[in-house]
Amino acid sequence: MKGIIMIIDGMADRPLGELEFRTPLEAANIPNMDKLAKIGICGIMDPISPGIRAGSDTSHISILGYNPYEVYTGRGPFEAAGVGVNVEAGDIAFRCNFSTADETGTIVDRRAGRIREGTDEIAQVINSLKIDEDVKIIFKESTGHRAVLVLRGEGLSDKVSDADPKHDGKHPKKVVPLDDEANSKKTAKILNKIVERSYEMLKDHPINIKRIKEGKNPANIILPRGAGAVPKVQPFADKYGMKAVCIAETGLIKGIGRITGMEVPDVKGATGGVDTNLKNITNAIMDASSQDYEFILINIDGADEAGHDGNLDEKLEFIERVDEEIEELMKIDDCYFILTADHSTPISVMDHTGDPVPLVISGPEVRVDDVDQFNERATARGGLCRIRGSDVMSILMDLMNKSTKFGA
Amino acid sequence: MKGIIMIIDGMADRPLGELEFRTPLEAANIPNMDKLAKIGICGIMDPISPGIRAGSDTSHISILGYNPYEVYTGRGPFEAAGVGVNVEAGDIAFRCNFSTADETGTIVDRRAGRIREGTDEIAQVINSLKIDEDVKIIFKESTGHRAVLVLRGEGLSDKVSDADPKHDGKHPKKVVPLDDEANSKKTAKILNKIVERSYEMLKDHPINIKRIKEGKNPANIILPRGAGAVPKVQPFADKYGMKAVCIAETGLIKGIGRITGMEVPDVKGATGGVDTNLKNITNAIMDASSQDYEFILINIDGADEAGHDGNLDEKLEFIERVDEEIEELMKIDDCYFILTADHSTPISVMDHTGDPVPLVISGPEVRVDDVDQFNERATARGGLCRIRGSDVMSILMDLMNKSTKFGA
Repeated sequence: MKGIIMIIDGMADRPLGELEFRTPLEAANIPNMDKLAKIGICGIMDPISPGIRAGSDTSHISILGYNPYEVYTGRGPFEAAGVGVNVEAGDIAFRCNFSTADETGTIVDRRAGRIREGTDEIAQVINSLKIDEDVKIIFKESTGHRAVLVLRGEGLSDKVSDADPKHDGKHPKKVVPLDDEANSKKTAKILNKIVERSYEMLKDHPINIKRIKEGKNPANIILPRGAGAVPKVQPFADKYGMKAVCIAETGLIKGIGRITGMEVPDVKGATGGVDTNLKNITNAIMDASSQDYEFILINIDGADEAGHDGNLDEKLEFIERVDEEIEELMKIDDCYFILTADHSTPISVMDHTGDPVPLVISGPEVRVDDVDQFNERATARGGLCRIRGSDVMSILMDLMNKSTKFGA
Repeated sequence: MKGIIMIIDGMADRPLGELEFRTPLEAANIPNMDKLAKIGICGIMDPISPGIRAGSDTSHISILGYNPYEVYTGRGPFEAAGVGVNVEAGDIAFRCNFSTADETGTIVDRRAGRIREGTDEIAQVINSLKIDEDVKIIFKESTGHRAVLVLRGEGLSDKVSDADPKHDGKHPKKVVPLDDEANSKKTAKILNKIVERSYEMLKDHPINIKRIKEGKNPANIILPRGAGAVPKVQPFADKYGMKAVCIAETGLIKGIGRITGMEVPDVKGATGGVDTNLKNITNAIMDASSQDYEFILINIDGADEAGHDGNLDEKLEFIERVDEEIEELMKIDDCYFILTADHSTPISVMDHTGDPVPLVISGPEVRVDDVDQFNERATARGGLCRIRGSDVMSILMDLMNKSTKFGA
């Protein structure tokens, strides 16, 4: 038996006037999701607990059975792992922007002309930077103007402020320690030096000289933000005794897969947007299901993007396109298949809300209920009633007959 | 007012192909349970939390409002209390087998020819054993080849391994400390001496000489397992201000009644199997309800046995027989009556699973819902939605108007 959890990011929503007070899931044509609801047991799920507005990261952490209040210190560690840095517990990780500073030190473009090429070469310069004898600096480009910075060594802390001023026209913010610990002071000092040195080292970099010639903003300064300490996490395979693979699009969710020790294949054409190549994602899932993985975590991100953009048509269309792929995925034999979302991203709110999300479990011997539609309200009448993200793995492990009895 | 919780052990199940995908409760003819559902408020309950495979012991502990993760260290303490040893907090208790060893020390029969008689006389020999000046050894026979061992004294620990090799044809396992503490080392040493001395003291015991003459395997060695420290438990009467009685069949549940300070009468003919004398159990309940008890805990075990045996017909028949008794129990006046199970023991799994169990509360002023069948799926649509075992006593105390307000 395999366990598959398919998370359609931000898919859940609220009733919308323009849909005659139906939600996108209620209005969309989703025969395959409805069929799953019909053959499975349904319910609603609070990713963390009722009303808590989960991030995609904290929700996935919770659904995988880790306590986000213990594990999650910030987005940095997951982003860093997501771009392929082999982070270690205790590392301090940051998200960074390649930005453009002028000669006075003012940030004139936080996104360095939305640079797309050459960031790997620029990143190599910062990656070799030495500030403190005992601290290793790891720096790697991500997509576009984004990058990650990891500090490794003794006496560091994630209790430091951001260098990113968040708006153009300002100087980089001086990083300050957020508590009185020596570790925080030391880390803030190192970060300020990295920001300062990055300008010196990058302003005349060949890539930037070329960009300036072409009238583009150079990527001549690094602005870290979102410090987080890489958590000590029990590998998924140890925790559950299952070999696991994570099929995801974004660095954030890939990072969660990597930090929990899953295999994380790259899927060609998986953009994390509504323009993603769903066929390739389906093929990657079908491929994984034919291998010896016992657990497959899937995250598809487009519905969340459409929700953040407040774009109803795109959200409806994307949900219907995902539904078409589910027809193929339902052919996977000998599995428990769980379909859900990691949070609601209502069109009307354009951000995550704390509304519960629909969830269905199909597979052998589940107590099939009489719900035959997959949406927020129909599943609320299902046999699972209302569960939490942290219950999902326990329920799955029990169904898969992989959990140990507590007591006699 | 009285509060009555009737727990039909392992009654809940999963849909079965041979019942046209109904559960035994859905297929059985249970007019009285259905009537309770109709006049009461229904829901499903996770004995511990969703997906967690509860033992009967940990589930009962949870339903009584104690935290099994704090209270439960192993089965030994409850079994010991169940056979009537007056255990004290801090005692280290073990389940034991009377077994047969040959002259080379090999265990040739872990169950000593399933000995049924004379174990009380054999037990007395071990009960008087002295190994360490400061440690009292209490040893008492249970049913058949089973017994309990309790060590009382300073400097003991339950972090020790089993002596029982679990299979015939092996030597007793050397008991080893499971941590580096001096207490664990001392306890392991004592246990190894008990095993060794038990053979010396029992091999020529008159009961065994007689058994050998009759061609039966002698009970000439004691094999302890399942160490547990007797927990410090607030007596039920202190915790809830109610005089309580526990009507149960098995030593395990009787032990929970005793450790929480309840009265635990013996019920004649209560075997804990499908052959139990349900009439006598009903009489014992009716008798208790006419006395000054304010709380009655009932456990009936046969459905769990049938589940463990994978015997569908026996499970169906037993549930129907219990249903007949409920007709009588519904005549008890002035009470809140809660009917539930402690866990599912599906016919298809033949062991406990983490599926939730149905639960109904009948009594004055409950918010009666429109559920009129008592089974896993019908009650999931009830007014209680999905609760946990640890919620039950709080709900009952509130209905009985016995709880104090938290706040103003």
